[in-house]
Amino acid sequence: MDSQVIGILGGGQLGRMIVEAASRLNIKTVILDDGFSPAKHINAAQDHIDGSFKDEEAIAKLAAKCDVLTVEIEHVNTDALKRVQDRTGIKIYPLPETIELIKDKYLQKEHLIKHNISVTKSQGIESNEKALLLFGEENGFPYLLKSRTMAYDGRGNFVVESKEDISKALEFLKDRPLYAEKFAPFVKELAVMVVRSLEGEVFSYPTVETVHKDNICHIVYAPARVNDTIQKKAQILAENTVKTFPGAGIFGVEMFLLSDGELLVNEIAPRPHNSGHYTIDACVTSQFEAHVRAITGLPMPLDFTKLSTSNTNAIMLNVLGAEKSHGELEFCRRALETPGASVYLYGKTTRLARKMGHINIIGSSMLEAEQKLEYILEESTHLPSSTVSADTKPLVGVIMGSDSDLPVISKGCDILKQFGVPFEVTIVSAHRTPQRMTRYAFEAASRGIKAIIAGAGGAAHLPGMVAAMTPLPVIGVPVKGSTLDGVDSLHSIVQMPRGVPVATVAINNATNAALLAIRILGTIDHKWQKEMSKYMNAMETEVLGKASNLESEGYESYLKNRL
Amino acid sequence: MDSQVIGILGGGQLGRMIVEAASRLNIKTVILDDGFSPAKHINAAQDHIDGSFKDEEAIAKLAAKCDVLTVEIEHVNTDALKRVQDRTGIKIYPLPETIELIKDKYLQKEHLIKHNISVTKSQGIESNEKALLLFGEENGFPYLLKSRTMAYDGRGNFVVESKEDISKALEFLKDRPLYAEKFAPFVKELAVMVVRSLEGEVFSYPTVETVHKDNICHIVYAPARVNDTIQKKAQILAENTVKTFPGAGIFGVEMFLLSDGELLVNEIAPRPHNSGHYTIDACVTSQFEAHVRAITGLPMPLDFTKLSTSNTNAIMLNVLGAEKSHGELEFCRRALETPGASVYLYGKTTRLARKMGHINIIGSSMLEAEQKLEYILEESTHLPSSTVSADTKPLVGVIMGSDSDLPVISKGCDILKQFGVPFEVTIVSAHRTPQRMTRYAFEAASRGIKAIIAGAGGAAHLPGMVAAMTPLPVIGVPVKGSTLDGVDSLHSIVQMPRGVPVATVAINNATNAALLAIRILGTIDHKWQKEMSKYMNAMETEVLGKASNLESEGYESYLKNRL
Repeated sequence: MDSQVIGILGGGQLGRMIVEAASRLNIKTVILDDGFSPAKHINAAQDHIDGSFKDEEAIAKLAAKCDVLTVEIEHVNTDALKRVQDRTGIKIYPLPETIELIKDKYLQKEHLIKHNISVTKSQGIESNEKALLLFGEENGFPYLLKSRTMAYDGRGNFVVESKEDISKALEFLKDRPLYAEKFAPFVKELAVMVVRSLEGEVFSYPTVETVHKDNICHIVYAPARVNDTIQKKAQILAENTVKTFPGAGIFGVEMFLLSDGELLVNEIAPRPHNSGHYTIDACVTSQFEAHVRAITGLPMPLDFTKLSTSNTNAIMLNVLGAEKSHGELEFCRRALETPGASVYLYGKTTRLARKMGHINIIGSSMLEAEQKLEYILEESTHLPSSTVSADTKPLVGVIMGSDSDLPVISKGCDILKQFGVPFEVTIVSAHRTPQRMTRYAFEAASRGIKAIIAGAGGAAHLPGMVAAMTPLPVIGVPVKGSTLDGVDSLHSIVQMPRGVPVATVAINNATNAALLAIRILGTIDHKWQKEMSKYMNAMETEVLGKASNLESEGYESYLKNRL
Repeated sequence: MDSQVIGILGGGQLGRMIVEAASRLNIKTVILDDGFSPAKHINAAQDHIDGSFKDEEAIAKLAAKCDVLTVEIEHVNTDALKRVQDRTGIKIYPLPETIELIKDKYLQKEHLIKHNISVTKSQGIESNEKALLLFGEENGFPYLLKSRTMAYDGRGNFVVESKEDISKALEFLKDRPLYAEKFAPFVKELAVMVVRSLEGEVFSYPTVETVHKDNICHIVYAPARVNDTIQKKAQILAENTVKTFPGAGIFGVEMFLLSDGELLVNEIAPRPHNSGHYTIDACVTSQFEAHVRAITGLPMPLDFTKLSTSNTNAIMLNVLGAEKSHGELEFCRRALETPGASVYLYGKTTRLARKMGHINIIGSSMLEAEQKLEYILEESTHLPSSTVSADTKPLVGVIMGSDSDLPVISKGCDILKQFGVPFEVTIVSAHRTPQRMTRYAFEAASRGIKAIIAGAGGAAHLPGMVAAMTPLPVIGVPVKGSTLDGVDSLHSIVQMPRGVPVATVAINNATNAALLAIRILGTIDHKWQKEMSKYMNAMETEVLGKASNLESEGYESYLKNRL
């Protein structure tokens, strides 16, 4: 796409995924790292540089082969980067100044405070018991003692629960520059990937929710399971944060959500980030491609960081090296057994708790994605819905807008049962679960359903909306509510526009709905037609019997004796 | 994921994309092809084999390094493959027997006919004028004269328009084994990718529509723009076709759709296929990963070949080498400017009409994807909808289920205009365009809309359904239809369940809906509140004037003079 060559400091999984994105655009990449690191595995088109990304000479060698340098890790030698830049004029994104600011977490905090970005209260602290005790007394226990540098995945952090922990904390973090951070009583951790163009425009990916386990990112939910307002607020906070850093490239902004809805920036990564791996499957443009576009000046249109479609929901699960040799591959195998899940392994040799890969799970709803996650994590033994075996496959779907409709709708189920028709019955609310309804309607036909019975009361949109999204015949049952005698439901269901019919039965008459469904099945399979004829004969016999009795007894006696 | 090593005969773009999919699963691949072919660029973890994939010795060398062999092209030396398999016992998928059958297009046809798969009438034909004339007289002109072997992308095909073409046809295809094919008057060309497991299960991807230009695949629409029944029929035909071939792997099945809905299989590719490139973005598991899973025995669950979400729509555009040097990159650049589009380049040197790459476009609806395609193809100069500049951004969205509602709804637009409120007005039908409605509802808030006015008649589901899918206030206008005096619409709109309110105004009263919308805007921006107060004052003044006149004139005179 572009004749620029990108040099990458660091050849781990982030570098590897940058290489993959660049290759798809015919953009050449050269890796600087020790040995045959993961990023080098998938790039044979260039000679890479073996060496440390902290070594100035190696960086200079890399610069000589490239048009732009970038990093997959912030713990680089920024002084060396600056000198190479001065000497050669090579472009470096993120800027060495930005990396320098971010890799010292306390400088990072000061920078954010200076730019009016909300953060947890922090202060630089001397490495002695007195200073630690004072901070705790002033800001309360527990608080966090953190190393200013080389801190990631929980390394370099210590939770000071009480003053008894102080000596342990000092021992754990000895000989490191420290700062103390007031504990933020967060209800969720959120994160937003933001990409910044050379012109300074910023584009945010959706707000995600991150769940950590033993201080390492474990699961990411995209979008975050919070309301739209908080999602939007988090995106704006992340965009404002990234606007404070000149240069270009992608940034991960981690935040705390407090119980009152307040958001505090926790920390920033000036590179692709674990919380953005979901973008590979959930967005058309991944965080890696966004980074490549940003640092080479390729187009970044409005909305290019959006989820692929309006009902894309994603979950990312990290695959960490397991205790048992290759134990982590069990999750991967279960992921491969799960429709909508995909596995990314990084070509690393296994070590306990090492990031070996990740799994992305996509669903049309978060519920669907969560059910798949449960299967992969062995918390459930079965996959969601659509994988029902053929012999138990329901032919009729019975749905209702609310459980309050069940007393009425169950009469139809009784009929289906009586005829031996395989059917399913569940609650699908047009107004309270519109995504579930959409999925139900779209998938019904492919799951083998032949007719849908939908009952609803009041504004009663369920039958009509389902009919609008499936080619199956939909039978609507107006359910009588506490007002208007069910005329409202009847009107809502029967008065459909030209083109989208709903087979409407009488108010509360689920029995007829079921009989109609069986008549429809009869057109496909003669056995149902035969059953229906039998049923009709029985009805006829019953009425003829009554007529005969009425005629022979006379109407007055009949009225007295039988009704 | 798996310790098996895959050897690939052929290192073009298909091989390259197989390598990419395998790498993500930590599955090793070794390429056999001449020179530094595209697939080798992205695989530095193995020593590849330079040589021809038709050379038996080279194939044997490849087999020695691998556990399973596969092909990215059917024009291989199947005799050599069989001999290597006999000698070494290596697994080869697709089976050499299958490749042999498919690479001779006439044997392929005979095989399909034998298995009751519908195909266009074809017959082997001798390379002379008499035979060609006879076929034309018996089956009609135009018909197709085809080479049985080495035919792809239109090479090896000749359309015999009339008997005058016969000598040209013979000259074009001289010295090749031929067959003649009756012309199928198709209305569309469809294709389905089908993957077959080692156990013989088959899984079909969605039915797509292919559009060819100069005999080369140009555009693919996924899913095909045909009704669900035809889509399903095409999938079943493709599955039945692939069931006739033992072994494992992915197959592309190309079909003709005739005007009466009949489907005929045109031809089969025993490998990943151009018509399946859309799966990289539109499906969680791409055709390349499906192939890797199939030939290594990894899990292939039900539904793993589905589109990512229920409203994923995709278009694939091939990027062919342009006449002007690097002219094809202009389309790529425009694709990068398009949200939801992504570019795949194969690392090849440009040649006229060579397949250099492809572009995938994703949309929540096919219409959205088509609009993006128009932009990329320079048939339109602007990108679809959501990229409206901030100053013209509408604050109120006015939607109606049908243009027949416009005479009523326009009264509300008049009010918005009178107040100077930026608004948009369009048709969104809950029943006829449910996907468009879903997108409208989901995107309205993020586009800056503050209130939605929705008018509908009859069953009138639009306001309630939109309210169910947006956190914005929705104002419902019941439109009076030709029956029931609008009571049906009123009930449908106002009788919403607990939890999802629609602000319902009187039947046909779009004026009040607009005024309500402006009151809502007033809570955000005081200027609208001031305008509303002015409007209310004017109303008051008007009524007070009337009251004063009525009082001074007396009611009888007022009635006579003014009403």
